[in-house]
Amino acid sequence: MTFYQKLVHHHKKISRLEHLEAICGWDQAAMMPEGGNTARSEALAELAVIKHELSTAPYLSGWFEQANSEQLEADDVTSLLEMQRSWQQANIVPAELVEKKSLACSKCEHAWRTQREKNDWQGFSQNLKEVVELARQEAQIRAEATGLSRYDALLDLYEPGMTTHELDKLFSEVKSWLPDLILQIMERQSQDISIQPVGPFPVEQQQSLSHALMTKFGFDFNHGRLDKSMHPFCGGVPTDVRITTRYDEADFTSALMGVIHETGHARYEQSLPEKWAGLPVGKARSMGIHESQSLFFEMQLSRNELFIETLAPMAAETFQRSDDPALSAENLTLLNTRVKPGHIRVDADEATYPAHVILRYEIERDLIEGKIEVEDIPELWDKKMSEYLGVSTKGNFIDGCMQDIHWTFGAFGYFPSYTLGAMYAAQFMVSINKEMNVDNLVRERNLQPIFNWLDRHVWKRASTVSTDQLLIDATGERLNAQFFKQHLEQRYLK
Amino acid sequence: MTFYQKLVHHHKKISRLEHLEAICGWDQAAMMPEGGNTARSEALAELAVIKHELSTAPYLSGWFEQANSEQLEADDVTSLLEMQRSWQQANIVPAELVEKKSLACSKCEHAWRTQREKNDWQGFSQNLKEVVELARQEAQIRAEATGLSRYDALLDLYEPGMTTHELDKLFSEVKSWLPDLILQIMERQSQDISIQPVGPFPVEQQQSLSHALMTKFGFDFNHGRLDKSMHPFCGGVPTDVRITTRYDEADFTSALMGVIHETGHARYEQSLPEKWAGLPVGKARSMGIHESQSLFFEMQLSRNELFIETLAPMAAETFQRSDDPALSAENLTLLNTRVKPGHIRVDADEATYPAHVILRYEIERDLIEGKIEVEDIPELWDKKMSEYLGVSTKGNFIDGCMQDIHWTFGAFGYFPSYTLGAMYAAQFMVSINKEMNVDNLVRERNLQPIFNWLDRHVWKRASTVSTDQLLIDATGERLNAQFFKQHLEQRYLK
Repeated sequence: MTFYQKLVHHHKKISRLEHLEAICGWDQAAMMPEGGNTARSEALAELAVIKHELSTAPYLSGWFEQANSEQLEADDVTSLLEMQRSWQQANIVPAELVEKKSLACSKCEHAWRTQREKNDWQGFSQNLKEVVELARQEAQIRAEATGLSRYDALLDLYEPGMTTHELDKLFSEVKSWLPDLILQIMERQSQDISIQPVGPFPVEQQQSLSHALMTKFGFDFNHGRLDKSMHPFCGGVPTDVRITTRYDEADFTSALMGVIHETGHARYEQSLPEKWAGLPVGKARSMGIHESQSLFFEMQLSRNELFIETLAPMAAETFQRSDDPALSAENLTLLNTRVKPGHIRVDADEATYPAHVILRYEIERDLIEGKIEVEDIPELWDKKMSEYLGVSTKGNFIDGCMQDIHWTFGAFGYFPSYTLGAMYAAQFMVSINKEMNVDNLVRERNLQPIFNWLDRHVWKRASTVSTDQLLIDATGERLNAQFFKQHLEQRYLK
Repeated sequence: MTFYQKLVHHHKKISRLEHLEAICGWDQAAMMPEGGNTARSEALAELAVIKHELSTAPYLSGWFEQANSEQLEADDVTSLLEMQRSWQQANIVPAELVEKKSLACSKCEHAWRTQREKNDWQGFSQNLKEVVELARQEAQIRAEATGLSRYDALLDLYEPGMTTHELDKLFSEVKSWLPDLILQIMERQSQDISIQPVGPFPVEQQQSLSHALMTKFGFDFNHGRLDKSMHPFCGGVPTDVRITTRYDEADFTSALMGVIHETGHARYEQSLPEKWAGLPVGKARSMGIHESQSLFFEMQLSRNELFIETLAPMAAETFQRSDDPALSAENLTLLNTRVKPGHIRVDADEATYPAHVILRYEIERDLIEGKIEVEDIPELWDKKMSEYLGVSTKGNFIDGCMQDIHWTFGAFGYFPSYTLGAMYAAQFMVSINKEMNVDNLVRERNLQPIFNWLDRHVWKRASTVSTDQLLIDATGERLNAQFFKQHLEQRYLK
């Protein structure tokens, strides 16, 4: 066995443990009764230790050295590089710091659940300070090892290759036109009269509608399931993707759009190349590319009024409300394209969403680089919310800087993925439209050619090329925020 | 840390991996879509290897040696002995064989699901041969290490202390009176006129009735769930017990009695002593004792006509059939105590059930000892079915030798547990009746004192004593088949 083969074997082993982790994690969120939690958490922590031991095994350093001098096919060279990248990432941070951070994050997240309800910024900020301090230490270590800036070194974990320099450029461009665009859209929509559908919309019917839509979007139920959980997510493994949603009997569209969103994530996972199963090179390219697929499904396709013409009669039939004007295609389109600045990121529409992300990016970047401190967050948050969205969050931490879970578990560098995803999705759509008429396909209910394009240009590429290269190969150029701007203008101002 | 403490720590680690295995195994049977099976089997096989590595770590031998010379509390001595027993069992079989068998079993079981439907003995027997060959290798290795016969060495995994010698004695005693007893009962019941309830009994209502009964039997839903699977089982972990059933809309009693049966298993698991959680001494004593609890719940309690007086009105209300004479207590009692030889073990009544078990015992014993081959099974099956129960299974593999899942996953030595369980249960009931009037308690719908007895004499004892000792402490004597005979005579010939 060559050293390259040994490394392949080793990574497949780790991947099989990730399989168990993913399924038991899904179970914890979607199936497990409350009383099972302590033992489950202990079991998953034990698995994390074993995975860490395998990922940082001392002999790997020698194996990589040997493998690098072996004669390899071009594909295997790429695969080796991705193994090495993930190995370096796992090995840079000392076990002691990993453990310290894990404990601080657990404590912070756990307390946040009750502190948020009580609007208790004082209590929360104490824990957050500890998390930030450890994240800064981690960033420092990663920065020294990679030559990147501290924030970039964290960003690299979620969006490899992306930098503060690039993000500042992209986001400042967005900031130059977004606030005004939002005002124009609001002005344009101010005369729209929409009807709020009145529930109850029974969970069972919502489920059956969700299944029908997932089928339309090509979800492979032979390799996946849809279930319920408190916080929707896409989990499981490529051969068995588990997506979840939560149902609100008063409003069926939120679960529905959530299911379509997760179906985008799911199809990416289900379509990753079998050839590279279980290896780093066979994984999704980045969080931003992952989000581009969910947003492509949700925003680019499903909130298109032509698609809603398909969706509306399905909904009306499922809920047996063929006469309900609230379920007409026209009304559902108004509801699903309404732009309205608000406090909460997860409830935001696609036009205001980037403002939420840019705000978080600017704060976490400066926090990690040591330019601001935890105490500065509330004022900055309020200032930026007012500036970007005209919304005040003064003293309202629940709906302000305490709304997200990300910082509580130390995931600094994750937020930009959301807006990068929206931009990638818009750019993909422009390229697809050069090859086919998407509106016609949606009208004909024939999404297959679109999925084929995504499969060829995104899904099957996995991590075999850099994000930049993927974009260039698929669209002829690097990421360009103009496509996202054009998408918003075309949908909301045409 | 003492060596004993090190061993405790080590076994808790193994137990946490067993947790992940149990949940992913449950998921595989109850949740997983077909297409996820290959990767799941590989992941579980990988975990089996890691568990095996931990269970057979070379340093353990020294730790046991050191721990044996440490000053320990009496309880800890028992715990140490059980650790040592399971360590010895795990150390006998080489890792390579463990993995091979695990893969062969997964493959065999998975294919069996469709082969059984198609009555495809040819296809199935190819996979089964592979499983039998590996089970023989395992038996040989275990026999050499323990000095037991090959079959006894496997039997010891499920029913420690039990031997072919003992079973031959017990079962030949049963065979001496059972066929005649069955005939007498059939003669006695030949004039009974019962009404077959006519479905459909909607799955949802059956589920709600199942939940109500589980609650009556003390199942803790904060530490467990009820779901559906093709083959009902009790899985999960003591803090999160997963039981499953299958529903037939034409007949609600089969699922119901199945649920009560699994609830017996579940309560044993849920009631194991917390003090010993994660350690071998804290596990259920044996498969036979486990089965005694499920059969106690199902046979001793639930098919008692006095209990059916509670059950019948619950069923009539759930299915909204208060006037249906088929759901009267009298009729349901007739149906639930009807003795009729049939093909299917899991559908068998408690009088004919031992015949199914003895048949399987005799075949698997000879299969493992190399006295017969897989090809011989169908003919032997048919011969014994005719002899013990007067039933022909010629060419009918679905309802013959392909009906059970056990052999598909290589669990040779397991079947005797069912009838041992029935015998233990009958013996426990006699002792309980010496302390309280069970019929009166059932009439008063007050099962708590009975559960308290089981908790004290069985559940909380876990593996702190041998099966023999447990029986003697609880009932004053070793296993005695006469109690089972008396139970059958009393219920069916009184």
